Amino acid sequence: MGKGRLEAFSDGVIAIIITIMVLELKVPHGADFAALQELLPVFCSYVLSFIYVGIFWNNHHHLLHASTVVDGRVLWANLHLLFWLSLVPFTTGWMGENQFAPLPVALYGAMLFMSAIAYTMLEKALIVCNPSDAVVTMALTKERKGIASAVMYLLAVPAAFLHVWLSFILYVLVAILWFLPDRRIEARFKS
Amino acid sequence: MGKGRLEAFSDGVIAIIITIMVLELKVPHGADFAALQELLPVFCSYVLSFIYVGIFWNNHHHLLHASTVVDGRVLWANLHLLFWLSLVPFTTGWMGENQFAPLPVALYGAMLFMSAIAYTMLEKALIVCNPSDAVVTMALTKERKGIASAVMYLLAVPAAFLHVWLSFILYVLVAILWFLPDRRIEARFKS
Amino acid sequence: MGKGRLEAFSDGVIAIIITIMVLELKVPHGADFAALQELLPVFCSYVLSFIYVGIFWNNHHHLLHASTVVDGRVLWANLHLLFWLSLVPFTTGWMGENQFAPLPVALYGAMLFMSAIAYTMLEKALIVCNPSDAVVTMALTKERKGIASAVMYLLAVPAAFLHVWLSFILYVLVAILWFLPDRRIEARFKS
Amino acid sequence: MGKGRLEAFSDGVIAIIITIMVLELKVPHGADFAALQELLPVFCSYVLSFIYVGIFWNNHHHLLHASTVVDGRVLWANLHLLFWLSLVPFTTGWMGENQFAPLPVALYGAMLFMSAIAYTMLEKALIVCNPSDAVVTMALTKERKGIASAVMYLLAVPAAFLHVWLSFILYVLVAILWFLPDRRIEARFKS
Repeated sequence: MGKGRLEAFSDGVIAIIITIMVLELKVPHGADFAALQELLPVFCSYVLSFIYVGIFWNNHHHLLHASTVVDGRVLWANLHLLFWLSLVPFTTGWMGENQFAPLPVALYGAMLFMSAIAYTMLEKALIVCNPSDAVVTMALTKERKGIASAVMYLLAVPAAFLHVWLSFILYVLVAILWFLPDRRIEARFKS
Repeated sequence: MGKGRLEAFSDGVIAIIITIMVLELKVPHGADFAALQELLPVFCSYVLSFIYVGIFWNNHHHLLHASTVVDGRVLWANLHLLFWLSLVPFTTGWMGENQFAPLPVALYGAMLFMSAIAYTMLEKALIVCNPSDAVVTMALTKERKGIASAVMYLLAVPAAFLHVWLSFILYVLVAILWFLPDRRIEARFKS
Repeated sequence: MGKGRLEAFSDGVIAIIITIMVLELKVPHGADFAALQELLPVFCSYVLSFIYVGIFWNNHHHLLHASTVVDGRVLWANLHLLFWLSLVPFTTGWMGENQFAPLPVALYGAMLFMSAIAYTMLEKALIVCNPSDAVVTMALTKERKGIASAVMYLLAVPAAFLHVWLSFILYVLVAILWFLPDRRIEARFKS
Repeated sequence: MGKGRLEAFSDGVIAIIITIMVLELKVPHGADFAALQELLPVFCSYVLSFIYVGIFWNNHHHLLHASTVVDGRVLWANLHLLFWLSLVPFTTGWMGENQFAPLPVALYGAMLFMSAIAYTMLEKALIVCNPSDAVVTMALTKERKGIASAVMYLLAVPAAFLHVWLSFILYVLVAILWFLPDRRIEARFKS
């Protein structure tokens, strides 16, 4: 089975996820700075989630690029990943709506943790049906980053009840970790 | 006529259907567990529908993969299927909003039944313009599953008025039926 | 310039238009037949618009299929068509929300008329940059249908103020006109 | 890395942005002209933004068409552009909702300015990994238009507090500037 439609469908879902989040930025009735200021926490959580969804799309893009074929197990592993990502608009909105209260911030971390697990499962499913060098190398190169992110997401869940900023710092750290370009991978997969 | 744009358009519509369902998960104003608990029925119906739309996308993907060309009748049969699927966010939301009351649960079954009928019509239209071995084999291999699902959807409609859990068990059974990988088909269509 | 991205972008926009219309079907709080019955006019206008958007997508698909290249003028003519189609969810919702009151029904006709004009302009722009036999033939074959539709849309605008059902009958007639398969075209463009 | 998925993902996001803006055109409960008239400012800002998003898509289309490969930096530069464009529905809605009050009109200009900057950054990232003649020529040909637009967006921000119509005239001027076909570019890149 070719990977074309899997990529197209995933692109569609991720494009919608990243865009409907902006609907949580409800248009205020006032036209002054105060009205904008009230939206600040919602805006901040929007920016954070935009970056996260961008990171997942980026990694998904590289992973599928290294793969050649997909099978039924990959289709479901991919839908499983999309399921957790589809909750991003909800958890983002809840976090912003409640000015980063502990429970929403913890749930945000739990959802990112589940997405990271789902991503790893997709990686494993792709390795099974593409036992080639490329996917395995890709998986190994990003393995440490992946484990570090998952651990930080998991830590962010209890940390939210200690102090919400602890979790927030963890989220920003993970984002920076992935945002830094990974020249090694590109050098290897440049086509 | 090539099938590329039909696949792309269907992917777009199905991607939007599966994603806008999450908008029914309205962001609660409270930030405690009670606020989340209230969303539980909406969340459960979201999970169920996500799996169902995933199943339809999966089958659509395999069916079109086995086909080579499409004609005007296929375009309309496909739009007919997309029409019934486009009602999924509404019926899902209605079911969740009313804590699985009998009528919404019955309507959910009716909508799934109509989608199954529409899928069979698309299958027939594709066989007419692709009288090749591949589509016919695909249709035959999944025929029993398809009939079993349609019967169970239809049974779920009156069952909802007896006891709502009867319908729910039927819906979960159908999902499991399709979720189990169908190794036979993949073995045959691996390209 | 290739036509691939123009098709992909149009598919995306039309897929979203056809799907977000369902958001106008607001999930009712009651779980009885009365709650469903109230939604009937919204549902009917949804079905009508789904068919219309399907017709436009179908024609767009055939038209682009017959074309080989696109230029800047085509890009803008296409965006112009998408603009009028993007108003479908609004006019559909307004018509349904007000139980087919005269003004919304007239506006619906005006929007369809503008879409038909925009479609003709796109056709002309494509003929200019694809002066081949295929696009010209396609345009000529559907010319009578196109003119008949535009006239009927235009008639539906004043007719709505006489009696709303006159316009409604005109809309249904146009839909039937396009729904009937056009075997001549397919025979000619089968590839 | 091929540019296919980058184009597909961008098309998806831009298609959603241009289409969900119409959701700000809230369906009114009344069915008379007065109800429509109230929507006029929202409609006008919708038309303006539709044209702007169309311009960005058009330029994006030409730019990627001239490019051959993309790298990680381009992926992020592209996401950065999509981020600013994703704010279009919000700023458009805010401007329309408040009958073109100064602050929303100024914010609209600021968002367009940031989008223009992001577009330039994407252009530069593409030139780095496609040091071919085509992208450089494309960038140079549109350079003056790009700088003129950015300056006009920036001027529109303070102008909104002087008189809102000054900004509005600037926005319309930029739209006209891009709307005019650029025959030179097409002549060069016709394939």
